[in-house]
Amino acid sequence: MNKLEDAIVREIEGIIPANRVLTSMEELYSYSYDASFGEYLPQLAIQPESVIEISKIMKIANKHKIPVYPRGAATSLSGGPLPIEGGIVLDMTRMNKKLIIDCENLLAIVSPGVTTGEIHYQAEKAGLFYPPDPSSSKVSTIGGNLLENSSGPKGLKYGTTKEYVIGLEVVTPEGKIVRTGGKTVKNVTGYDLTRLIVGSEGTLAIVTEATLRLIPKPKACKTLLATFSRLVDSGYAITKILSSGIMPAAMELMDNACIRAVENFSPCGLPVNAEALVIIEVDGHPLAINEEIEKCEEICWQVGAAAVRTARTDEEREEIWKARRMVSPAITQMGPTKISEDATVPRSQIPAMMEKLSQIRIKYELNLVVFGHAGDGNLHPNIITDKRNIEEMKRAENAVSEIFEAAVSLGGTLSGEHGIGTLKAPYMEMELGEAGLDLMKKVKNAWDPNNILNPGKIFPKAGQTKVVLV
Amino acid sequence: MNKLEDAIVREIEGIIPANRVLTSMEELYSYSYDASFGEYLPQLAIQPESVIEISKIMKIANKHKIPVYPRGAATSLSGGPLPIEGGIVLDMTRMNKKLIIDCENLLAIVSPGVTTGEIHYQAEKAGLFYPPDPSSSKVSTIGGNLLENSSGPKGLKYGTTKEYVIGLEVVTPEGKIVRTGGKTVKNVTGYDLTRLIVGSEGTLAIVTEATLRLIPKPKACKTLLATFSRLVDSGYAITKILSSGIMPAAMELMDNACIRAVENFSPCGLPVNAEALVIIEVDGHPLAINEEIEKCEEICWQVGAAAVRTARTDEEREEIWKARRMVSPAITQMGPTKISEDATVPRSQIPAMMEKLSQIRIKYELNLVVFGHAGDGNLHPNIITDKRNIEEMKRAENAVSEIFEAAVSLGGTLSGEHGIGTLKAPYMEMELGEAGLDLMKKVKNAWDPNNILNPGKIFPKAGQTKVVLV
Repeated sequence: MNKLEDAIVREIEGIIPANRVLTSMEELYSYSYDASFGEYLPQLAIQPESVIEISKIMKIANKHKIPVYPRGAATSLSGGPLPIEGGIVLDMTRMNKKLIIDCENLLAIVSPGVTTGEIHYQAEKAGLFYPPDPSSSKVSTIGGNLLENSSGPKGLKYGTTKEYVIGLEVVTPEGKIVRTGGKTVKNVTGYDLTRLIVGSEGTLAIVTEATLRLIPKPKACKTLLATFSRLVDSGYAITKILSSGIMPAAMELMDNACIRAVENFSPCGLPVNAEALVIIEVDGHPLAINEEIEKCEEICWQVGAAAVRTARTDEEREEIWKARRMVSPAITQMGPTKISEDATVPRSQIPAMMEKLSQIRIKYELNLVVFGHAGDGNLHPNIITDKRNIEEMKRAENAVSEIFEAAVSLGGTLSGEHGIGTLKAPYMEMELGEAGLDLMKKVKNAWDPNNILNPGKIFPKAGQTKVVLV
Repeated sequence: MNKLEDAIVREIEGIIPANRVLTSMEELYSYSYDASFGEYLPQLAIQPESVIEISKIMKIANKHKIPVYPRGAATSLSGGPLPIEGGIVLDMTRMNKKLIIDCENLLAIVSPGVTTGEIHYQAEKAGLFYPPDPSSSKVSTIGGNLLENSSGPKGLKYGTTKEYVIGLEVVTPEGKIVRTGGKTVKNVTGYDLTRLIVGSEGTLAIVTEATLRLIPKPKACKTLLATFSRLVDSGYAITKILSSGIMPAAMELMDNACIRAVENFSPCGLPVNAEALVIIEVDGHPLAINEEIEKCEEICWQVGAAAVRTARTDEEREEIWKARRMVSPAITQMGPTKISEDATVPRSQIPAMMEKLSQIRIKYELNLVVFGHAGDGNLHPNIITDKRNIEEMKRAENAVSEIFEAAVSLGGTLSGEHGIGTLKAPYMEMELGEAGLDLMKKVKNAWDPNNILNPGKIFPKAGQTKVVLV
């Protein structure tokens, strides 16, 4: 990638102190990757500290048609912050000064660089609760979470990240500062730009402040772990519990490959021959959840669980969740490259999707591990491979394509929470149709006529119809 | 309004049977009004029965640049379906054939002309629950509810209509048929067009089918009625209950004028000297709500309630809600013209907003009655007047302007659930700023370059800066 013209760099240094304008190769290299794969060097990295600075940078970038990529903690699994067309990376992590918990209005007002985990901590200290919880919340920033609409296990009962964002301050591609929404849950003053920007993967605007809705913290929770000899029975358990009038806070599924991976990595006493394991957690009033967890237990036995264990103490609960938390480290140990997908299907199609994934595993002879948030149909098929093994990567490429096709053919979606980014762009038209994709492009073109904000993401390039990993 | 050219009418009659293309003055007159005020005759009214018909109509309309206004049951309080620039009204009430409750996936799939009340009924029959409930739900159509994002009393605990729409089939202004979202709660495949269209007041697309998320029906509910000698104490009660960890399903406030109106109309034994009355309902697990309603009762007494009464039986609960349900008929009796507003403020500002409304009542010597969904800050100031009384209407005009200014100055919004329509358009820039409004216009222009879909709504005309009622 060529360097930016000196005149442009000087123009930027006129508004941002030089120590926050990074140009050396070592510095730029650290902005070249995220938690997906692919490496792209930016021409410049800037660490803005205020909305005014960001507005000025965007005006310069727009004038000179230089790509700009906002970047939080770079935990994106779909390439969100990758500077794939060169240009400027905006490192948003210094925008982390504001975290106000407003107990009277049940709100949090936050800067984009604050970690989501810190919001959880401060809200809970005040007896409140911010439900969205991507597994990376200890390190990932709220700005990144919002722009990707990444939500984690609690979407089933509590809804996704989007359901908790009621106001934004953003900078547009043309450098204008705009406030959307506000401090009220009910707001129908014009179009819902807040929800249009949340989940837009940094292609429509840069978030510089967010107003989040909080709820009272649930008073208690109860957790059980059920194992099933037959995968299909775990699917029945999930559907039957939901139609019994119980809305669990989480319903996490792990398949046999996933159970084995965890047991290999850190033995927890999981049954390595079980086809599936389900963790169910209910939360709410202590009296209500006792009854609910008993009902869940009963249903699991009814549909043929091999074993059901309800945690009687906090320690036992921790032990159950440990199995789930070990999944990521266990998988990471299995190989250097992890392709983490998030194909999502209507809940009733989970057994059918699991069956298709199993066929894909056999057909392409891949290390394919499946876990996920089964209650909302959000599965995480992970392919463990090695990007240096070109032949295996080609098989992975085909497997990923088939996973996308399977999800869409079952009435699901390409992405439940990781975002489209670069990898899934070729499949957008398959899901949305030409006319649907065209409506999205019209919004993008209208707001960002020079296509400078996070270019190369979401929208397929002309003629691009297939995943390309290598 | 001139008639449409004969050639265009013939083109339309080529695709829609003549008995569903209405041209007589009597027929057109019945499409000239809604539940707000103002009367505008359309040039033509069409009763489509399929998405294909709508697509063809839109293509003709777009070619000839004829305005099109989708219309449900016309219960809009902001002029949503009024054909203010002539053209074609699309009467959507024949699009009412589909109402599928999918228990396995907790979904409802519905045609736009189905009434929201029918969705409630069918969902509850299956043990499920669709929480949004505008007071008009027995007659209003789901299509209109979605396009206006009207939500009713349950927004506090359950969120607004928007939170329950996960997929749409729509026809664009250019006549294309597009599906947005899908059947999964988690979906981040591209921009959230679903939520962009919900609440767009029929200016972006015509909804021809919707996929709604359902939840398990709460098992039980408990209701109390508290009266307060001082309005400000009712505000304290609301805030204190919410920060105690309880999330009521509804918290309805009525001011003194409202209490008197109801007692005049249909004596319920309400205390006509109380400054405020609050109805609180909690729902959920029977054991949990017993404890919660006791806590609510305790808090009401603590902050100085004059009386608190918890319903012990279904009949007593009905009696409490009767007071609330009598509000609209009672107000309607007070005068021929009702200006129903929905200014919404952050919950903590309710006492301040009530104070401002009280000043406005005195200043303009108007019959101003206030009730509303206090838990989410969504107040309904209603001015009862007579549109033939020009002098009083002028005072009402000024009062409405001041109500909007008060809401925005307290960090609130012009509209919580009625929509902007025609009346509030002049105030959009005050709340959104020029840049914010401009982003909305860019979306509208990109999707509807000929401005044929519901023109004259939401966006102020050049130079329009004030409410005009007469």
